[in-house]
Amino acid sequence: MQIHDFKSVVANYKVIFFDAYGVLKNYNGLIPGVEKTFQYLRETNKEFYILTNDASRKPRQLADSYHNLGISDIVQDNIISSGMLAMDYLKQKVKSGKVVFLGTDDSAYYIETLGLEAVPISELDINDLTGIQALAFLDDEGFDWKTDLNKTINLLRRKNIPVIVANTDATYPVSKKEIAIAMGGLSEMIEAIVGKQFVGFGKPDSQMFIFAYEHIKTANIEKKDILMVGDTLHTDILGGNKFGLDTVLVLTGNTQSEDAEVRIRSSGIIPTYICEAATIE
Amino acid sequence: MQIHDFKSVVANYKVIFFDAYGVLKNYNGLIPGVEKTFQYLRETNKEFYILTNDASRKPRQLADSYHNLGISDIVQDNIISSGMLAMDYLKQKVKSGKVVFLGTDDSAYYIETLGLEAVPISELDINDLTGIQALAFLDDEGFDWKTDLNKTINLLRRKNIPVIVANTDATYPVSKKEIAIAMGGLSEMIEAIVGKQFVGFGKPDSQMFIFAYEHIKTANIEKKDILMVGDTLHTDILGGNKFGLDTVLVLTGNTQSEDAEVRIRSSGIIPTYICEAATIE
Amino acid sequence: MQIHDFKSVVANYKVIFFDAYGVLKNYNGLIPGVEKTFQYLRETNKEFYILTNDASRKPRQLADSYHNLGISDIVQDNIISSGMLAMDYLKQKVKSGKVVFLGTDDSAYYIETLGLEAVPISELDINDLTGIQALAFLDDEGFDWKTDLNKTINLLRRKNIPVIVANTDATYPVSKKEIAIAMGGLSEMIEAIVGKQFVGFGKPDSQMFIFAYEHIKTANIEKKDILMVGDTLHTDILGGNKFGLDTVLVLTGNTQSEDAEVRIRSSGIIPTYICEAATIE
Amino acid sequence: MQIHDFKSVVANYKVIFFDAYGVLKNYNGLIPGVEKTFQYLRETNKEFYILTNDASRKPRQLADSYHNLGISDIVQDNIISSGMLAMDYLKQKVKSGKVVFLGTDDSAYYIETLGLEAVPISELDINDLTGIQALAFLDDEGFDWKTDLNKTINLLRRKNIPVIVANTDATYPVSKKEIAIAMGGLSEMIEAIVGKQFVGFGKPDSQMFIFAYEHIKTANIEKKDILMVGDTLHTDILGGNKFGLDTVLVLTGNTQSEDAEVRIRSSGIIPTYICEAATIE
Repeated sequence: MQIHDFKSVVANYKVIFFDAYGVLKNYNGLIPGVEKTFQYLRETNKEFYILTNDASRKPRQLADSYHNLGISDIVQDNIISSGMLAMDYLKQKVKSGKVVFLGTDDSAYYIETLGLEAVPISELDINDLTGIQALAFLDDEGFDWKTDLNKTINLLRRKNIPVIVANTDATYPVSKKEIAIAMGGLSEMIEAIVGKQFVGFGKPDSQMFIFAYEHIKTANIEKKDILMVGDTLHTDILGGNKFGLDTVLVLTGNTQSEDAEVRIRSSGIIPTYICEAATIE
Repeated sequence: MQIHDFKSVVANYKVIFFDAYGVLKNYNGLIPGVEKTFQYLRETNKEFYILTNDASRKPRQLADSYHNLGISDIVQDNIISSGMLAMDYLKQKVKSGKVVFLGTDDSAYYIETLGLEAVPISELDINDLTGIQALAFLDDEGFDWKTDLNKTINLLRRKNIPVIVANTDATYPVSKKEIAIAMGGLSEMIEAIVGKQFVGFGKPDSQMFIFAYEHIKTANIEKKDILMVGDTLHTDILGGNKFGLDTVLVLTGNTQSEDAEVRIRSSGIIPTYICEAATIE
Repeated sequence: MQIHDFKSVVANYKVIFFDAYGVLKNYNGLIPGVEKTFQYLRETNKEFYILTNDASRKPRQLADSYHNLGISDIVQDNIISSGMLAMDYLKQKVKSGKVVFLGTDDSAYYIETLGLEAVPISELDINDLTGIQALAFLDDEGFDWKTDLNKTINLLRRKNIPVIVANTDATYPVSKKEIAIAMGGLSEMIEAIVGKQFVGFGKPDSQMFIFAYEHIKTANIEKKDILMVGDTLHTDILGGNKFGLDTVLVLTGNTQSEDAEVRIRSSGIIPTYICEAATIE
Repeated sequence: MQIHDFKSVVANYKVIFFDAYGVLKNYNGLIPGVEKTFQYLRETNKEFYILTNDASRKPRQLADSYHNLGISDIVQDNIISSGMLAMDYLKQKVKSGKVVFLGTDDSAYYIETLGLEAVPISELDINDLTGIQALAFLDDEGFDWKTDLNKTINLLRRKNIPVIVANTDATYPVSKKEIAIAMGGLSEMIEAIVGKQFVGFGKPDSQMFIFAYEHIKTANIEKKDILMVGDTLHTDILGGNKFGLDTVLVLTGNTQSEDAEVRIRSSGIIPTYICEAATIE
């Protein structure tokens, strides 16, 4: 397994896409050294985006979380979240009316911004579904799982509406050793039970990459000019590969140095490069 | 679609296996006319068993539920529940120590009967897993889904123990139109997330039919002497067919008269007979 | 179920995406009346693309097939095939060397155009894999299924290379009543057996819609200006919906008038409109 | 990972169930030392059965294969094959008529023994399905995969008949490094394409264990008196565990010494014991 120097790799590309968790930050805060990466990108005029499977917080909150950690180069415009994709989809497909959601009040931002009425699943009257246009899985917090997941099933049995999953990750890390079930895990269970097809957003699906691609401001950028940097084979690397980008696997998150080779071989998901971290000395 | 007379069909068999919900009872109580079926079985000396995917209640409680509805022919010995199968399995595989469970205190009966220590998931100290020998999914009641399903995942990531699912049904009916997520639905989500193989009990798996078959007291019974009666193609009829039994689909539960033919054709699960109900005039 | 007039629907959009089989043509040739649709599109200056899951023939051959049926409005530039997507991907990810393929000599066109060496699976020496950079599933014709699918498995066990599936459809129609297994069916079996992740191309994946979207020549087109027309819920309509387009289900192919409503309800895949056919009187 | 001495383990049980390939023999012939195991079983009066996922050969042929390798202790009565289970099922469910099969003429033995007419898929007239009662997947040899798998799909679309898979293994080994696609792999592809539920036979399903269990001649044998010996976690060990037997994983086949621990941990399938081989010095 050949390890490449991150700076030498990045030097060959004009636009860099980063995953967030496990690449730029972890349960401890920033990955040490990452701040110099953004300094280098600024000095070399390379454009960058952070592609994150997250619909629990507004884009501004996501950007602020980096400011609070001391990186002022990352602003709201650099953030592409799966929540933004879901909002974009809702905008095309639901022109008015009510959208029922599972999530916190913060996550309802994505619905309300569009001028739609956001109805928390807990407040839904199952016997009056007038005006309900869609259902959105936004965040695993903010509702009672037993009561409200059962309510969700019966809502979907009564009314045939589009269902949006604003983050398809099955789990998320909560500490060095602990994980928690995310919206993707819950929504997949519900999808199997009701036998319907939900519309999900997040890596590895191409939607997120095209969304970022369309936001690029540098002129004449082709796919070969873009590098995707991630720590997870099944989302970041598979998604980048499928979209036709070169990819870097970093070893600071989900894929540890000692099992990177085995996982690449057994999954068949092959990054263009492997680097220790997304850091520049 | 040919509809057979239930009595004429039953007359050709010596032992009858019944599913419970949708065949003998529903949300309203007994299916009208079922009491005469048991009178007929008694008069003709036919042995019968009720094969039910249920681990939430003790066998005696399950039998009592029929007494309370007015059928005294059904006693504890006639009940084969998936909880009993799970208990039988635990007896073979776990000789001593603690079994963590998700479920009500009632459901813990299956563990305690074996002289094992039943630890509710909510009381588990995730930092002290000494003596934990297995995990059992028993009932969807009795724990906090969000807190305790997340705890379950982290338990299974820390310690490699056998996991038993005492009822593989994904949902159960709660009223004429409403259903709720059952243990099989939750455990399948957890199984996918942790990537481990759980051991599940319940129709359509052959285990339950074997267990019932071994309990038969009438001498010299072969599979061709047994009839399985159920309302659900994917559990009762598929399971009966796989075990080599003749099967009756009744139209008083999950499979309604108007879509029986379509469902049989589209699933490829073909009952030997179709009857309106498991009732005898 | 409300049936819309196709012309009235199309009038509201600037760009039309069509599926091919079941929408424009079937086993009998052209769907009667479709030629007037293209006349109308020409007269009203609406741009259109045909999005087809097909990698068995070159784009020119695909366009010629319409000329031969009498529609001269469809030229090579109007065709977006999954084979073209696969070629685009190979171009980004494989710079030189050999690509092993399953398919006819015609289908190898997609590899050879890139200056790569196309090796038919039947001619591969399994004991000398030097220079093999990728494997491509192109067409179900042109190789011996038993010999060469077994060879494919052992190739993938020996060498870790990217695998491309140039058409993810599981089956294709061969006559009014008969279907045949397509590359997507075979590749899914192989993917499960070797436990690796293949990269597939075709609807409903967003890649194909992105690819078509990027080819649009009319200025200032947004997603709301585009209409997707298809006969299959799980590919055309789901894919169009996911990409954020309005969608028309036509009843001239996979989804028949008598079961459209049941299929929409049971799948949860909801088209914006339903029309009898993609035809204009 | 604790390695147990095979003889010391076997000493505690009265009946031994063995998997065949990877336990008793491999591509080279007998696993060296296995003949002494059968001598020991004879001397200590322990009953044994060989449970094998195989429907390609008659039970006598399977027994003869051991005689030819020099073990005369194994006779036809010791063999339990998935083909025998399939035959037992057909006997219960199909009383007369024709059974279409995919396989060699040898494999048709299982159908013909029952007095049913075995029709090779290649000889089936798809336009005259009169009298066709069932379809059986018996062996991956004996038919043309492309022609006859496509014919199989169209048969199942035209007529709703039970489908039997007489060996659910997805692959089988053909040499030290090569594998081939088995009936389980092909039938799973067809099952997904036609959307029907097939009835499969073979480990890890409980059917095979109950079938062996019922053949035991020693009196008063309980599950705790039986040991299952296998080399594959997902079939032998999972199946044995599910049936409630103690299990031995041997390291002479699919599970190699160096990755046994990782595979057990990652799969959650935990054998009671691990032994180097099913051999006795």
